[in-house]
Amino acid sequence: MKTWLTLAIPFVFACVSATASPAAPTADETRASIIHMEKAALERWTHGDPSGFLAISAADVVYFDPAIAHRLDGLPALTAYYKPMTGKIHADKFELIDPKVTVISKAAVLTFNFVSWYEGKDDRWNCTEVYRQTPDGWRIIQTHWSPTQPKQK
Amino acid sequence: MKTWLTLAIPFVFACVSATASPAAPTADETRASIIHMEKAALERWTHGDPSGFLAISAADVVYFDPAIAHRLDGLPALTAYYKPMTGKIHADKFELIDPKVTVISKAAVLTFNFVSWYEGKDDRWNCTEVYRQTPDGWRIIQTHWSPTQPKQK
Repeated sequence: MKTWLTLAIPFVFACVSATASPAAPTADETRASIIHMEKAALERWTHGDPSGFLAISAADVVYFDPAIAHRLDGLPALTAYYKPMTGKIHADKFELIDPKVTVISKAAVLTFNFVSWYEGKDDRWNCTEVYRQTPDGWRIIQTHWSPTQPKQK
Repeated sequence: MKTWLTLAIPFVFACVSATASPAAPTADETRASIIHMEKAALERWTHGDPSGFLAISAADVVYFDPAIAHRLDGLPALTAYYKPMTGKIHADKFELIDPKVTVISKAAVLTFNFVSWYEGKDDRWNCTEVYRQTPDGWRIIQTHWSPTQPKQK
């Protein structure tokens, strides 16, 4: 009986451990996950649905784009800002140019040049997203969109 | 003798530990350090010296501003980009509006609205800096500057 237990307990423990703690993703897997999340949110964004970004943004997200006078602080502010855009943004297709993810422990910094096309016209942006690892998955804590080489008065 | 050793060894160990591993800075101290580094580099920047930013940027820094067609990757590229600006940028004074630092383990995300004045005219920007903790101190791994509410054609 003792021998059986001696063999069985480590086996059961190993099975429980394997279920409870799967192998941590590699840095390459993390990079792929982050880019996949961003593309999925952009897919919705370019079909008039800003809620894809809201769903993966943290409560303490901060946000910049060229239209606002001051950084937006927090998910309620970003939600209110995006609401009137619902159904108004469309693109025929888009591309992330050279997306790069720098992983620092529980932070992942995604940068890319973005281009979208609508009725044959291109629109080009610089983008920085900072994601934070949480028990619910990766969440955006900082978004910064700016036009690439805008024409100024 | 044994009693003396029992007392002395923990004391010596405590002293060595205190010397070798000073208390880790609090999150507030980290935030203050990051903002101090940024202001010091901006002080040099607004006096025509971009090398303050280069000195605190990591080898793998990535960089966006509105003048470039594609994200700059790496310190050599940023150094080459900044070189012709030496001596050409000046401001009478500047201010970081509501700087916020979000610390995620060994990453610190600094965001602020920036305003500088030169000969009475103001210039307003959005800025995101991501710093990474290294054995040499905090180093910038991502910089994103964009104009606040630019006038477009």
